[in-house]
Parts: sequence; structure tokens; C-alpha cells
Amino acid sequence: MTPSHEHERYDVGIAGAGQLARMTCLAAWPLGLRVAVLGSPDEPAGLVAGGVVPGNWKDPEAIRALGSVCNVVTLENEFVDAGVLAEVAASGTPVYPRPESLGVIQDKALQKALLDSCGLPVPPHVVVENPSELTSVGRDFGWPLVLKARKLGYDGYGNATCATPAEAEDAFSRLDAGEGVLAEAFVPFVCELATMVARSTRGEEAVYPVCETIQRDHVCTEVVVPARVDEDVRQEARRVARAAALAADGLGVTGVEMFLLSDGRVLVNELAPRPHNSGHYSIEACETSQFENHLRGILGLSLGPPLLRAPSAAMVNILGTTTGPSRPGLAAALSVRGAHLHLYDKAEVRVRRKMGHVTTLAGSADEALEIARSAVQRVAL
Amino acid sequence: MTPSHEHERYDVGIAGAGQLARMTCLAAWPLGLRVAVLGSPDEPAGLVAGGVVPGNWKDPEAIRALGSVCNVVTLENEFVDAGVLAEVAASGTPVYPRPESLGVIQDKALQKALLDSCGLPVPPHVVVENPSELTSVGRDFGWPLVLKARKLGYDGYGNATCATPAEAEDAFSRLDAGEGVLAEAFVPFVCELATMVARSTRGEEAVYPVCETIQRDHVCTEVVVPARVDEDVRQEARRVARAAALAADGLGVTGVEMFLLSDGRVLVNELAPRPHNSGHYSIEACETSQFENHLRGILGLSLGPPLLRAPSAAMVNILGTTTGPSRPGLAAALSVRGAHLHLYDKAEVRVRRKMGHVTTLAGSADEALEIARSAVQRVAL
Repeated sequence: MTPSHEHERYDVGIAGAGQLARMTCLAAWPLGLRVAVLGSPDEPAGLVAGGVVPGNWKDPEAIRALGSVCNVVTLENEFVDAGVLAEVAASGTPVYPRPESLGVIQDKALQKALLDSCGLPVPPHVVVENPSELTSVGRDFGWPLVLKARKLGYDGYGNATCATPAEAEDAFSRLDAGEGVLAEAFVPFVCELATMVARSTRGEEAVYPVCETIQRDHVCTEVVVPARVDEDVRQEARRVARAAALAADGLGVTGVEMFLLSDGRVLVNELAPRPHNSGHYSIEACETSQFENHLRGILGLSLGPPLLRAPSAAMVNILGTTTGPSRPGLAAALSVRGAHLHLYDKAEVRVRRKMGHVTTLAGSADEALEIARSAVQRVAL
Repeated sequence: MTPSHEHERYDVGIAGAGQLARMTCLAAWPLGLRVAVLGSPDEPAGLVAGGVVPGNWKDPEAIRALGSVCNVVTLENEFVDAGVLAEVAASGTPVYPRPESLGVIQDKALQKALLDSCGLPVPPHVVVENPSELTSVGRDFGWPLVLKARKLGYDGYGNATCATPAEAEDAFSRLDAGEGVLAEAFVPFVCELATMVARSTRGEEAVYPVCETIQRDHVCTEVVVPARVDEDVRQEARRVARAAALAADGLGVTGVEMFLLSDGRVLVNELAPRPHNSGHYSIEACETSQFENHLRGILGLSLGPPLLRAPSAAMVNILGTTTGPSRPGLAAALSVRGAHLHLYDKAEVRVRRKMGHVTTLAGSADEALEIARSAVQRVAL
């Protein structure tokens, strides 16, 4: 922590200091809330937080230290050790989402099993413990087969789409951490949908509009809201997302990623027990941002309306295209009228690294996307 | 400065650490800009800034220290010594608004004389250097007569409305700091109007919607936007405000306070060379907030559109009604649907002290005001 806050207690502690924690801190200040983050003072959230508990979310001691100075602990990624968080909760600092819930979500096999057991539509899936099973699983589900590490995967890391049994065996050996690998049928989706479900510790719920997410190389690059699909598809996606967040006992914001199939069915792909990249647009485009509602939810405060303020909005991620010090083209990006720029102030740019995003509101999705893309190009990172 | 930033340079330095600096810091972070404020780490802006230069805006040494670590220096109040700021500018750190402009604005007599000389409509006014002149000034302007200290007045401090020559002589002796007192005709206004004019160092201009401000005991309590007056009155107010900001060489945001007379004329009351309380609504209600455009203006970046995002918006200040430690009713206030709460995190509440504000967007001014008032009541400070 910075010296001025040495003996301070924080309203909220976040186990991390990346861009999600940064935007949560920025949503906390207007409410008079003080947030501590776990990391270093020059990380995106370390710069803007009320306090910084030094250390890393992978370190149990650091997590305990965070818990000892905060009234409530929350997350910005789903990989934090659920057992350590359970200790923090047992010692008297509530952790939301609950460690039990996190323990299920952070294991993709347990997450899928839970969703399945609650009757939610998910792709065919099975845990493969021995690579010799892969050929028969591929025969059942069809090729290509999608293999996923049970834990720690994100933005395509920890995933493999395998066209043949040989590819699958190769991927298995890379992905298996001793508990097997989740094998899923490849879903020939029409598009990917997502939404956030905010739930408060006092039982309130707010469901954000359903958006369309566009991935490139497994990284979310663009989001359009509302999704350009029929209203009944959006209704179904909302229904599925609410049920999934409820099944997982989501508290605060839960991001729900979904596949839309050509027959109109909506399958749950994955849950994220935290604010989600697909919801960054909500800062400008919704009456209450996902970050503010995450805080309100975990603090047992009333949730704010998640309603859209414009006919359409788009969000385009600013992804690194090179490696080196970060020198964003601020002036050029701001010359694009209607572009809302968010830079995460990461010192180093890396290829595919999320460096910021641009949100636009417009009368149509095409217009919103065009403006946002133009601004992102000018940031030129 | 906090130790982690000891050798850092900041994009912007603000000579103060109150709520205006706080909201400017919060607008800076998403743009990847780092702001240093002058004050203490537990002041409203000290808590959220990138760095804190310790000291007070009244101390020339502290102002110079701020200038030495920042690329551009700006203000959150108009009382900073213009001569010291001119030294900072001469030493190579630009100061916006320019010290020359500030030197005129911070002296109400020079400000009025400038506006007058540029043909802008202002109330009849004269500098009174000897109390014996008051009787004849009152005869010319009519009673009551308004006396204003030339410098350092705000929220009614430094002003007196005098019904008789005896009252005026009494007020004169309290208000005169050696350079006389500004005497103005009392203006029987229909309502008070205000707007912000953002101007960039590269010559761009953005004029915010004209709002209606409601004062109680000389403190702004409520703002309604657009002002509930005829469109041609709003047009005239925009014309007057633009001309006034231009006359004063405003850079960044200039707040322009105006009187509307029963015959439809609009007079300039006062200028504020900085973001203005009447523009707080712009955080949620405009496409670009006054705080973001202040930064964009002084940094020579393109200005963002100041357009309203809803038919109506209201802003109600949260003013202290007691004295002691501050314990805002966060949960109660957030239970009011549609209320956007802004708390400034001041440790001590005092009577009439600005502790925060609530902004609402709605289909009508009445609806917006009603929701905002309800939330403010529940904060109960």
C-alpha cells in the first residue's frame, strides 16, 4: 500500500490489478468507495486504486494480506486459488463471488457439468483422462474436436481445435495437467453472443442487453450491442444467461458467453465470474456500467438499471500489434468524433495484448462499428 | 508526491485538490493521462490523482513545484496568484487558462470592464473606492445595490446586497481590500442561466447546452438542462457565453453565469475559468463531460461533442446540513432508480459544504429533478 493509506481499511479489495480492476476502481470513486488492488503500483489498476497491496494473485500470502485490509474481496480473473479465498472468507472477510462458486467455474469440466445438471444447453462434452479415448470421443462428437485445459485457459490459451486423432493426442499432452482434458464437440455457430448478469448479495438481478462478440484468433476484438439477431433469439439468450448465472451462484457481475446455432438454439459456452470484456461498452452506453453494478452487487447495494442509452453501441479492443514501449496515438484517436477512448496505461505493448478499447454510440450497429474501428486504427499500437 | 511516483512527470497538474480536480482526474485516467494535484493525499482529488504535490495553491513555492513536474498546469479555482502562474509559464510549463486571462477574471472589476469593452451585456457597474460615493451610486443604479469584493469571492462570500446607504457603507468596510469594491445594479432576473464553453489551444470550440441554475443562499443547489426557457433565449445565451469566453481568452472550460431578464435580455453575471458546478451533469448527460473537454482543450487535443444524451437532465448538489464526520447514506441513495451518485469523499461535513451531487436523465425536467431530489434527501448529510 502507498504510505498515506498504511492503516486504512478499504471498502473492496480486488485480487488483481489489470484493466478490469482499473475500470472497477474508476467506477468506485464516484460512489465514495475506496478500492485496494493486489499487484504493483504501476499496473493499470495500481495507478488508479485507493491502495495497492503489493504482491501477486497467485501468492496465497498476498491474497490473505488483501483480505486483512478490505471489507469485501472480489476478483478480476477466475484463476485465483478458491481454497485460499475460502480461508479468507472463513476468517471473516466475505469473498464475492463465493469461493465455492469460483471453485466450480474455474474448472471448465466442473462448470460444464454444473450447467448440464441444471438443464442448461451446452455443447456435447466429456472429460478425457487418457489420450487413447480421443479417437472414440471424436467418433461420437465428430471432427474437429475441441480440447480445453480444465484450468487457467483464456483468450485461446489452453484451447485446441483438433482435426484428427493425431492432432488431438498431441494437444492432449500439452493441455493435461493431471486431471484430464475437457473434450467438446466443435459448435458450428452462426455467431457468438454474450451478456452480463449482475446479481446482488441481497437477491436483486439486472441483465444487460445481449451483445454479439467477434473473436479473432480466440481474442475478443469487437462487440456490437444489441446483437444483430431476432428479438426472440435475444430473449432466449437472456433466459439462458440468467439461468446460468443463477446455477453458478454468480454474485456481482457474471459474464456469460454463448453460441447461436443456425437452428436458433443458444448454447452456453463459458461463464466468467467477473466483469467481462464484452461489457466494456456499458460504461458509456448503459445507464449503469457493469463495473458499478459489480460493486453494488457484492456490497449488497441496490443494482442500477442496465438499460442501453442509444439504439446501438460498439466496442472495439485496442490490441497490441508490436512489442515495445507503449506510445498510443491519443491525439489522432480523439480526432474521431464520437469515439470514447479507454487506455489501460500498460507500459509495454505486446502482440495481441489488450491495451485499451474504444466505445461508440450510434443510430445503427454499422455506424457505431465504423467509428470505433476508425479510432482504434488511429491509436496504432 | 507519493513515493512510487517520485521521479515521474505528469501530463497535467491542477493547482488544487477539491471536487473539481477530483472529477478532472477521473476523466483523465481513461485517456491514459496522469494528473498531479496540489494539496494533501486525503483531499477529494488527492485520493484519486496520479500524484500529489504536497502544499497549498496559496503558496507560490508549491505552485512552482507543481509546475516543475507537469507538462501543463491548470486550475480548479480562479484565485491562484496569476503572477506566480506567469512565472511558471515563463519557465517553460504552459499554464491554461493563460495567467494574463486569469489575472483579469479573478478581479471582478477588471472582468466586468473587459466584458463591457467587448460589447457584452452586463449589469450597470462601477468601482467604488470611497464609501462616500455609495449614496450617489445607489441613486444612479437604484436600491438595493450589490457590492462585491474585487477578489476571492465565491458562493456568496464576498458579496452583499444592500438596501440602504448605511448598509452599503457597512458592507464596503468589510469587503474593501484596498482597491475599492465593485458596485452593481441589482438585477431583477427571471432566472439564472449558465453554460460551459470549451476552447482548445488549437482553436476548437464546443458550447454546452444552456442550463438553468437554482441558487439558495448564493450556493448553487440545482441545475436543470436544457433551461426551461424559449429556444431563442437559449440561442441568445449561447451567443453571449461564446463571446464572453472568447473575450476572456478562455482555454479549457469556461463556465459562464448569466441572468435572464423579463424582457428576454441575457446579461453576463460572472465567468469561471474552469469546469463549473453547473456542468457536473455532463458526466452522464453529455457525449463528452466538461472535465474531459477541459483536459482535451488545455492539451490541444480535439474536443468531444457536448451534446445532451437525453431530453432532460437535472443535477442536485449534496450540501452539508450539519457539522461533523461525513457518513453518507449510500445504500438509501442508490435505491433511487436512475440516480447517479457522486460523493467527493470529504472527511468532514459542514453546513452548506458541497459534499457531492446527484445527476439524473429523464424525459422531462420535472421528472429528472424529482428523482435527483429524492436521492439527495436519502444521502442525508
